[in-house]
Amino acid sequence: MSEPDFKNIAIIGVGLIGGSFAGALKSRYGSSISIIGFGRREENLKEALRRGLIDTYTFSPEEAVKERDLIVLATPVGRFRELLRRFASHLKKDSVIIDVGSVKGIVRELESLVPEGVDFVGCHPIAGSEKAGAENASPELFNEALCIVTPTERTNSTVLNRVINIWQSVGCRVVQMSPEQHDRVFGLISHLPHLVSFALVNTVAKLDSEAIEYSGGGFKDTTRIAMSPSQLWVDISLENRENLIELIETMKTELDSLKDALISSDKQRLLKTFQKANNLRRRLKNDC
Amino acid sequence: MSEPDFKNIAIIGVGLIGGSFAGALKSRYGSSISIIGFGRREENLKEALRRGLIDTYTFSPEEAVKERDLIVLATPVGRFRELLRRFASHLKKDSVIIDVGSVKGIVRELESLVPEGVDFVGCHPIAGSEKAGAENASPELFNEALCIVTPTERTNSTVLNRVINIWQSVGCRVVQMSPEQHDRVFGLISHLPHLVSFALVNTVAKLDSEAIEYSGGGFKDTTRIAMSPSQLWVDISLENRENLIELIETMKTELDSLKDALISSDKQRLLKTFQKANNLRRRLKNDC
Repeated sequence: MSEPDFKNIAIIGVGLIGGSFAGALKSRYGSSISIIGFGRREENLKEALRRGLIDTYTFSPEEAVKERDLIVLATPVGRFRELLRRFASHLKKDSVIIDVGSVKGIVRELESLVPEGVDFVGCHPIAGSEKAGAENASPELFNEALCIVTPTERTNSTVLNRVINIWQSVGCRVVQMSPEQHDRVFGLISHLPHLVSFALVNTVAKLDSEAIEYSGGGFKDTTRIAMSPSQLWVDISLENRENLIELIETMKTELDSLKDALISSDKQRLLKTFQKANNLRRRLKNDC
Repeated sequence: MSEPDFKNIAIIGVGLIGGSFAGALKSRYGSSISIIGFGRREENLKEALRRGLIDTYTFSPEEAVKERDLIVLATPVGRFRELLRRFASHLKKDSVIIDVGSVKGIVRELESLVPEGVDFVGCHPIAGSEKAGAENASPELFNEALCIVTPTERTNSTVLNRVINIWQSVGCRVVQMSPEQHDRVFGLISHLPHLVSFALVNTVAKLDSEAIEYSGGGFKDTTRIAMSPSQLWVDISLENRENLIELIETMKTELDSLKDALISSDKQRLLKTFQKANNLRRRLKNDC
């Protein structure tokens, strides 16, 4: 086994992502690293322990970060500020904090909460699913996944490289973006699709919820992410609300354009609109 | 092998659905049925022949239906009227026509084009995918699938039972609805999701088409059906345009409700909206 850069690690929130990251590090570095999990649900922490994702756990964030080289914020995004404020004064000098949140506008604020001598680097591994909890964690989750790392002008380049390396060590392909660019891109291809998927299911709920009994693969795929954890998506939506408000407007304009084509029975316009979507979507592989 | 009710069958359009239905009948009844395929692309018809889905093929719809007991309309919906008009006078007395279209408002019009002594029954097997053509056809496609059969007050009950039986013989679970109820239900859980999926991809196309390179499983699932054949969906959308115009409005109302909650940073409202979607969607199994 290779020698780990960070030996003592705290996972703040041992859910799908936090638990999978812990498991991936454990399967790579074994007992040469020590991982403590912080969480609120003992059942979940016990499951993480039983599965060997973590070595020990605590209900105290202050206790969790003590003497740790790397702290991974992996709770829902909405709790990052409060947790960081609580444990900030307990951090070891030269420790590094990363987060794994799906929204990165919060990064500059988190940086300002970090004490002198500690570094923060925002990260977003693209590897979630609608599943949650340590029970669904998998050490393979990051294998060949993309991880966006969002340095700012305050980021120390040595620390940045260490963070990039740890993501690569669990199988990720790392891409760098500014926090703002991240939130524009992921607002468009992740956050908006979640809101659209929620809205589509709620359209069915409003008009005829029994109709879903007849649904085929198309409806199931299109609305799979409407099973995503609600609280997590409240946090993400609010952290990226300015982009999302604009994106919803553009989405509505696209729907209006389809509606206008239907009102005027405009075959050619419908065909061109559908073909445009066909062409762009076919650039992606059709895995599910 | 069991004795077939319909011995001589014409498949009008040997694509994914027509080809799979032919293949399913062939694997059940073997050489005790004879299947002729009608189509326009010789390459596709040759592939169907090579795969044993059909016994022979023709480019003439009149030729295809001659002396056939069962005629299956399986082209895109927009061609049904024209084809039925062309071959109507060549139909054998007591023959039965079914269609496999995804929209059923057209059924009453098709009934009126059918000559005396011939029966028409509208059918919609819920078994499509974004794939197309005989090359993607599978005799297993209808196994455990739902098939909606849409009788009207003109439907002969003996013929209806024969049609139900043939769908059950290829593995379908059959449910009856009026054509109008079908189009309300499937407008909601199939046609609207397709339009939404096309509109979502086109929102990306409009704002930043390069962003799709970063997309994860959520975007891929939500937009898989945006790869569906354009012309087919032009036909379906126009045949169900009145329902769809209203459904798009309701969808926009749901999006506006999310936008309002974002504008006012209303956590509780977002949470309730997402939870409502969670609850309804979780009624379905999460297959993909």
